[in-house]
Amino acid sequence: MVRVAVVGVTGYTGAELVRLIAGHPGLELTAVVGRSEAGKPLAAVYPHLATTRYGALVVQAFDAAALAASADVAFLGLPHGAAAEHAAQLLERGMRVVDLSADFRLRSEEDFRAFYGEHHAPSLQKSAVYGMPELHRNELRDARLVAAPGCYVTATVLGAAPLLALGLADLRAGILADCKSGVSGAGRTPSVGSLFAEAGEGMSPYKVDAHRHRPEIEQELRHVAGAPVRLTFVPHLVPMTRGILATIYADPTDAARDLDTAGLVERIAAHYENEPFVRVLPPGQLPSTTMVRGSNFCLIGAAVDRRAGRLIVASVIDNLVKGASGQAVQALNVVLGLPETAGLGQVPLYP
Amino acid sequence: MVRVAVVGVTGYTGAELVRLIAGHPGLELTAVVGRSEAGKPLAAVYPHLATTRYGALVVQAFDAAALAASADVAFLGLPHGAAAEHAAQLLERGMRVVDLSADFRLRSEEDFRAFYGEHHAPSLQKSAVYGMPELHRNELRDARLVAAPGCYVTATVLGAAPLLALGLADLRAGILADCKSGVSGAGRTPSVGSLFAEAGEGMSPYKVDAHRHRPEIEQELRHVAGAPVRLTFVPHLVPMTRGILATIYADPTDAARDLDTAGLVERIAAHYENEPFVRVLPPGQLPSTTMVRGSNFCLIGAAVDRRAGRLIVASVIDNLVKGASGQAVQALNVVLGLPETAGLGQVPLYP
Amino acid sequence: MVRVAVVGVTGYTGAELVRLIAGHPGLELTAVVGRSEAGKPLAAVYPHLATTRYGALVVQAFDAAALAASADVAFLGLPHGAAAEHAAQLLERGMRVVDLSADFRLRSEEDFRAFYGEHHAPSLQKSAVYGMPELHRNELRDARLVAAPGCYVTATVLGAAPLLALGLADLRAGILADCKSGVSGAGRTPSVGSLFAEAGEGMSPYKVDAHRHRPEIEQELRHVAGAPVRLTFVPHLVPMTRGILATIYADPTDAARDLDTAGLVERIAAHYENEPFVRVLPPGQLPSTTMVRGSNFCLIGAAVDRRAGRLIVASVIDNLVKGASGQAVQALNVVLGLPETAGLGQVPLYP
Amino acid sequence: MVRVAVVGVTGYTGAELVRLIAGHPGLELTAVVGRSEAGKPLAAVYPHLATTRYGALVVQAFDAAALAASADVAFLGLPHGAAAEHAAQLLERGMRVVDLSADFRLRSEEDFRAFYGEHHAPSLQKSAVYGMPELHRNELRDARLVAAPGCYVTATVLGAAPLLALGLADLRAGILADCKSGVSGAGRTPSVGSLFAEAGEGMSPYKVDAHRHRPEIEQELRHVAGAPVRLTFVPHLVPMTRGILATIYADPTDAARDLDTAGLVERIAAHYENEPFVRVLPPGQLPSTTMVRGSNFCLIGAAVDRRAGRLIVASVIDNLVKGASGQAVQALNVVLGLPETAGLGQVPLYP
Repeated sequence: MVRVAVVGVTGYTGAELVRLIAGHPGLELTAVVGRSEAGKPLAAVYPHLATTRYGALVVQAFDAAALAASADVAFLGLPHGAAAEHAAQLLERGMRVVDLSADFRLRSEEDFRAFYGEHHAPSLQKSAVYGMPELHRNELRDARLVAAPGCYVTATVLGAAPLLALGLADLRAGILADCKSGVSGAGRTPSVGSLFAEAGEGMSPYKVDAHRHRPEIEQELRHVAGAPVRLTFVPHLVPMTRGILATIYADPTDAARDLDTAGLVERIAAHYENEPFVRVLPPGQLPSTTMVRGSNFCLIGAAVDRRAGRLIVASVIDNLVKGASGQAVQALNVVLGLPETAGLGQVPLYP
Repeated sequence: MVRVAVVGVTGYTGAELVRLIAGHPGLELTAVVGRSEAGKPLAAVYPHLATTRYGALVVQAFDAAALAASADVAFLGLPHGAAAEHAAQLLERGMRVVDLSADFRLRSEEDFRAFYGEHHAPSLQKSAVYGMPELHRNELRDARLVAAPGCYVTATVLGAAPLLALGLADLRAGILADCKSGVSGAGRTPSVGSLFAEAGEGMSPYKVDAHRHRPEIEQELRHVAGAPVRLTFVPHLVPMTRGILATIYADPTDAARDLDTAGLVERIAAHYENEPFVRVLPPGQLPSTTMVRGSNFCLIGAAVDRRAGRLIVASVIDNLVKGASGQAVQALNVVLGLPETAGLGQVPLYP
Repeated sequence: MVRVAVVGVTGYTGAELVRLIAGHPGLELTAVVGRSEAGKPLAAVYPHLATTRYGALVVQAFDAAALAASADVAFLGLPHGAAAEHAAQLLERGMRVVDLSADFRLRSEEDFRAFYGEHHAPSLQKSAVYGMPELHRNELRDARLVAAPGCYVTATVLGAAPLLALGLADLRAGILADCKSGVSGAGRTPSVGSLFAEAGEGMSPYKVDAHRHRPEIEQELRHVAGAPVRLTFVPHLVPMTRGILATIYADPTDAARDLDTAGLVERIAAHYENEPFVRVLPPGQLPSTTMVRGSNFCLIGAAVDRRAGRLIVASVIDNLVKGASGQAVQALNVVLGLPETAGLGQVPLYP
Repeated sequence: MVRVAVVGVTGYTGAELVRLIAGHPGLELTAVVGRSEAGKPLAAVYPHLATTRYGALVVQAFDAAALAASADVAFLGLPHGAAAEHAAQLLERGMRVVDLSADFRLRSEEDFRAFYGEHHAPSLQKSAVYGMPELHRNELRDARLVAAPGCYVTATVLGAAPLLALGLADLRAGILADCKSGVSGAGRTPSVGSLFAEAGEGMSPYKVDAHRHRPEIEQELRHVAGAPVRLTFVPHLVPMTRGILATIYADPTDAARDLDTAGLVERIAAHYENEPFVRVLPPGQLPSTTMVRGSNFCLIGAAVDRRAGRLIVASVIDNLVKGASGQAVQALNVVLGLPETAGLGQVPLYP
């Protein structure tokens, strides 16, 4: 059993990590860290975790030496900035780190600075591996520092990747991603915009031009396309707790001009044939976020708008699982050489 | 007082018409028709209407002669097909008709046939006036037959119209409308997809290539642009009862290439300066459907994505008010020469 | 026109007061006060109010003298404690005050101290009139200081009052009120418990033995019964924005032992016959909070459980209207000698 | 591996059974039956099940002989009436049956007739074992026909049982259960009341005096108390998909008069000490339905209202798991002599 710690356990991604580790055959949770609730048992912070064997585990304050003594791997569910500082201390002491913040996701220092400010551990930034196994599986094996991807990024990149990899999307028209997220994506820190009375029963776009996931999506699309991709990315807040839906639009290349819906779906399905967590729906079906709730799956549907000449791909994930904690576990499985699906067999909770 | 009847009162648009007529200074509701609940007082069908002066009005079966004797104008909240048949009978007897179905919205017989099948009153189809005062105010004056617009159409066309009318949007790239609707848009007839347990806590696209509002949007965009407009329109179902959000994307023309967000907002605001029911938010603000709930307003926000070179407009309405019953009343106000805002002063219900 | 000010306009009850005043024929809003947003126009704080004639009104910091110069009446939507202090200053300057906090609701200093701590204006506490017209209409006429009732109190007392007033409920068994509230009742100040991701899709009881509305309910039930009433009151949080449902249980007195549902409903309906804002549903129908949303109505249904020998009354209100701002306006109408329903004709927004 | 079939797989309890069986180490799903979707693979009916190894299993029409050949045990998720008929045929052919309908839950033929009409297999009615292991564990071992309990019954009986078993509740005052259910309890058959636009954002009581779970609750409370128990049971519909909350009120017996909250909680916790699926929260905490979502746990909190002299217990379950399919699997585990928790290790999905 590999001993793991969860740092920042009081946030949603932290709690979700505990849920997943509790059912993982190769991981043992040995420490949980959370500043605001230190001293309490996990079950007092999250009563639903009282049903796991970790309910009595006491939340600790952060202590790098103590963590290194009790665990081999640390998951970090911390705000950006803080994550880099903590990661540096833990790596130094020989631990592996899977960081769920944005600190190590961007290859470009310039992009990081533009969207987040000065980096707290620039020397580590380039050594991190981007934790999306579907795009970086080989780099992940035996990695010391994994940057788990953002939720919007995961849904968008998994949806758009086949269009770019297969040369179906015209790069001049680019990729337009109209994305919709559940409210848990905003985390557990109280804010007016995340209140039930504000976010419920309504919908709106936000941060139309400045969302921090934008450079990350651009980076990964460029990785797939082998060239810069013109991207418009508009996030929206939806009155649901979990789930991200990315509706992706592209103009077909000459090579794709004659594809109909069945042909497009077939190409995408073939592209993902061997991926354990990506499923492609048959032609005529489109995915709902409810179809993946609580699971690590990404579900994709596609259609061709023949009248207007556009390719449309819809991609859904659970933002807290495949968009955060589940993908972090999946990446760690690859790092450790465990079966990639270990501990991730949760069937979606529907309805 | 103009005497009005509501035919098809048991659906949501019918109930909403009663709510609006109850507060209208120039309309008197004299008859309500609804096949499935005939014989019951309105308050038994819709307990919330017990609080109006019309709670005791008894729902009748349809009888054209009786209606013509008791009312001057009929609102029709019927399924398409049925609407055309009923409208013909009422127009013959000298009534004015405001039809909320799709039967008279399309100018092109061919489009109608492609999306709805054979028309039941083709001779009337061309005489109807499209009931969106912002685009057809002059034609509406004294009209006998008004085709109240579809909900998706209203949000999309009001959002896209300034881009086309002012020559800001490149017609070759066209208009891409990613639309999101509350579940009441599916009506009150039970279906699996509209169940709370199915539509709640999740989101999905649907009818990606075949939604019936598509030819109607194309028709009205062409009306504004003076030329055919390439349109991609993808509707989505959102877990909220009321509201439509249209997120609209366009590539700038050369003339618009240098616009920033402030400039774009200013142009749109000037375009709608004299419209009583369209409000444009200041730069940096984007609309939520909650900001118009229960009211006849359309709220618009806009931004320029400079990095990718795209114009973005977000437009919200309450699908049952500005998207249906409220716009029908607004159109009737124009028809009758009443103040256009009469009876439509409801302040949005927020939160 | 009576000039009114809203102090504490940035909270939900403040915004709701503006909505109601905007449609009130006898009130003119001349000042809005709100510490956290001073200097901004109302429309910037609440975009939905941009549709009213008050959108450009600028939020001010509190200044008693300036308020007294510009308005005759002040509504206070402030936290308890602060309300008493502000009320004292405004009353001194000759204004009438309608306070929506708890500061002046309790007649008993001891109860106040037990649930809220030391009172900030004890001399005023006894002079205030409890602003529920159905119970205190005569005392309200020309009152200087009105204590608008709590939301749970309104739903519970209006539901239980007929049972007590008509001698139907056994006082030894008392009144058991299982109450359910929408999340807007917790206000607009962010807290973990009010987050969409926490309060959504779930339900729980809270403050089972210590909710601050308890002594207020006891006070008003005692007022109706003419004797102390044994009360159990358990509040629950429900995933809806607006609405309170009080399900009320009592054991029948000997006089009520033979009542069936029809008889019970008839007695309650007769009790409220002349009340403009209380409606009683026919036997066999039970109220939903959706039937009163956005309106000042209280809707009541009742049934007799013959098998177990219990009377059951269900009472619903919109917590922000009849449970707060609407009832405050209703009380002010009585104070000022205006028609009690002035400005309160909103038809419930359904669905 | 025990081979099991799910009859009535297209309903929510059927789909939930497949989810649970997919993760069960001792059960193998060999057949799924569903009239309305016969011929389709499971994944076409429920896309979320495409992620399990049973996605390609084809839905069949009912054929008792074929089922008996392919499976040892049948779960029945059918409407009452139909269930009895199907059960009889399968039992005859030597299968074990776990029936999730109401057909075999009531011991009293008279009660069955009063609430459901004539019984379709009266000879079997008395031989069935009521499938709540916490109350009937010994009777369940090796049973041929199990009647899985109703959802309201499970939450109410598990909450009230300790009060009755320990002699804490006064039988004359009886048990008052104010119950709240999510909308999935109404099943997947479309009806107006279950529509998102109707059930969303509101709350109401229903079937105050005639809900079919009433005689079942009375039967099981009598079983625990050893005497008839006066019961008032009022169900409410809550805008959430999953979950039942039973808030239970009782008057203390003399023996319980001096209990405070800590004492009451301690007694209940001791009562359930060895139950694998019942958890009792510490004093001061009350359960939310979100704390058990997707899991087979029942979570209980309790408090004493000293001022009024009442005991209050709050009990939550997931209506589709512990209230239906999960409890059915738990009961089958007992029947088969498997570990009672086999396949039921799902951690609650929170948030």
